[in-house]
Amino acid sequence: MIRVVLIRHGQSVWNLENRFTGWTDVDLSPNGLEEARQAGMILSKQGYVFDAAHTSVLKRAIRTMWIILHEMDLTWIPEFKSWKLNERHYGALQGLNKAETAVKYGEEQVHLWRRSVDVRPPALDKSDPRYEASAPRYRNLQKGEFPLTESLDDTERRVVKYWEEIIAPDLSIGKHILIAAHGNTLRALVKHLDRIPADGIADLNIPTGMPLVYELNEQLSPIRHYYLGIDGELPEGTIPSRMPS
Amino acid sequence: MIRVVLIRHGQSVWNLENRFTGWTDVDLSPNGLEEARQAGMILSKQGYVFDAAHTSVLKRAIRTMWIILHEMDLTWIPEFKSWKLNERHYGALQGLNKAETAVKYGEEQVHLWRRSVDVRPPALDKSDPRYEASAPRYRNLQKGEFPLTESLDDTERRVVKYWEEIIAPDLSIGKHILIAAHGNTLRALVKHLDRIPADGIADLNIPTGMPLVYELNEQLSPIRHYYLGIDGELPEGTIPSRMPS
Repeated sequence: MIRVVLIRHGQSVWNLENRFTGWTDVDLSPNGLEEARQAGMILSKQGYVFDAAHTSVLKRAIRTMWIILHEMDLTWIPEFKSWKLNERHYGALQGLNKAETAVKYGEEQVHLWRRSVDVRPPALDKSDPRYEASAPRYRNLQKGEFPLTESLDDTERRVVKYWEEIIAPDLSIGKHILIAAHGNTLRALVKHLDRIPADGIADLNIPTGMPLVYELNEQLSPIRHYYLGIDGELPEGTIPSRMPS
Repeated sequence: MIRVVLIRHGQSVWNLENRFTGWTDVDLSPNGLEEARQAGMILSKQGYVFDAAHTSVLKRAIRTMWIILHEMDLTWIPEFKSWKLNERHYGALQGLNKAETAVKYGEEQVHLWRRSVDVRPPALDKSDPRYEASAPRYRNLQKGEFPLTESLDDTERRVVKYWEEIIAPDLSIGKHILIAAHGNTLRALVKHLDRIPADGIADLNIPTGMPLVYELNEQLSPIRHYYLGIDGELPEGTIPSRMPS
């Protein structure tokens, strides 16, 4: 039986300020640091071990991974960081307050941007300082790969590419893998793995700092999935645990 | 001009307890965490930037590297961890108190073990729990590579192999590299780079948590080296800064 553990980074300073984050490299909040520590402790207590860890090039996910590896006494395992695991790019909305954006554009439009699979937020202009295509961390991207905005489908394409090219081969040879990533990156991955239709993913959410275990068969199709360390009910809208019937 | 930055991990709990550490995976002390933070701040203030970071598979060096990368806002750069950058293996002395060992074996013997280049401490027995050749982090070692004990020359051979195969090619194409490692790993590397004779390295020391910059020519021969963030005199026995005359 093949198992992969997904974790959404702990709370960030902008989660706290209710701002659209996307590729902005904001740090974890003190609460987010603690969430990561708790996740590491739960994984450790339940006897999980990893051979490698994958994350984005954004510090809120990287630090979540580091804290987990430290708690699990696995600081020595190989780490891989890729922009393909970055949060969905939120275009010109990045940095804006979600409530203010709702007032300006209307609740319905914001819900579409946030929860549809194929609607892109307004694109960044290439003169915008938030267009960081020439930043050192993105210098290995092919021309045109740095997004100006992304729909969830756009995010899914790059995440699935990373899954198929990098993660899946390692899982198939029995490696135990941790993926520390972002709310929409993981929603996109889960949508792909569980073949969730477009209208089924809209209101599904993955909570921060909570290890989500996927058990897969040899073809890497999901058998079941569940969270670790849940006492009682999941928050509303959370992707539910699924056990085989 | 090519520059590489070496840093010895911050103070560990066993530095503090005056015990032989070697490959024992002890953590940083609170003071060691702070040393790493200071090193990161100095590097950041002085405008250093790295493209990649190399370290051992021991957490005191890994966490030193992580803290530095976080302080420099470089959490996203690729990290490489290799047992070839591990501290010198101290054989059966690992875990023993240095003062007690001196009482038992005599000051002179302990000085030989610690400061000669070719004398090995008593070897581990393969039945010793400290012989960790089958631990997951060492499973990629070839048969016979896991040491039972090491002289400084033994350490130098594997460190120089790593330098020549992994670090040097990257330096030659202009990459900026950080190496976070251990007292004897770095003494061995410095001995090799500066062609220090056996009797010249005996009493030379590299202080914890202090960035040591090597400037190299195109053949990767050192031009000069210096510490960052030194106010006043270096501690006695420290490898001195060397500026071109």
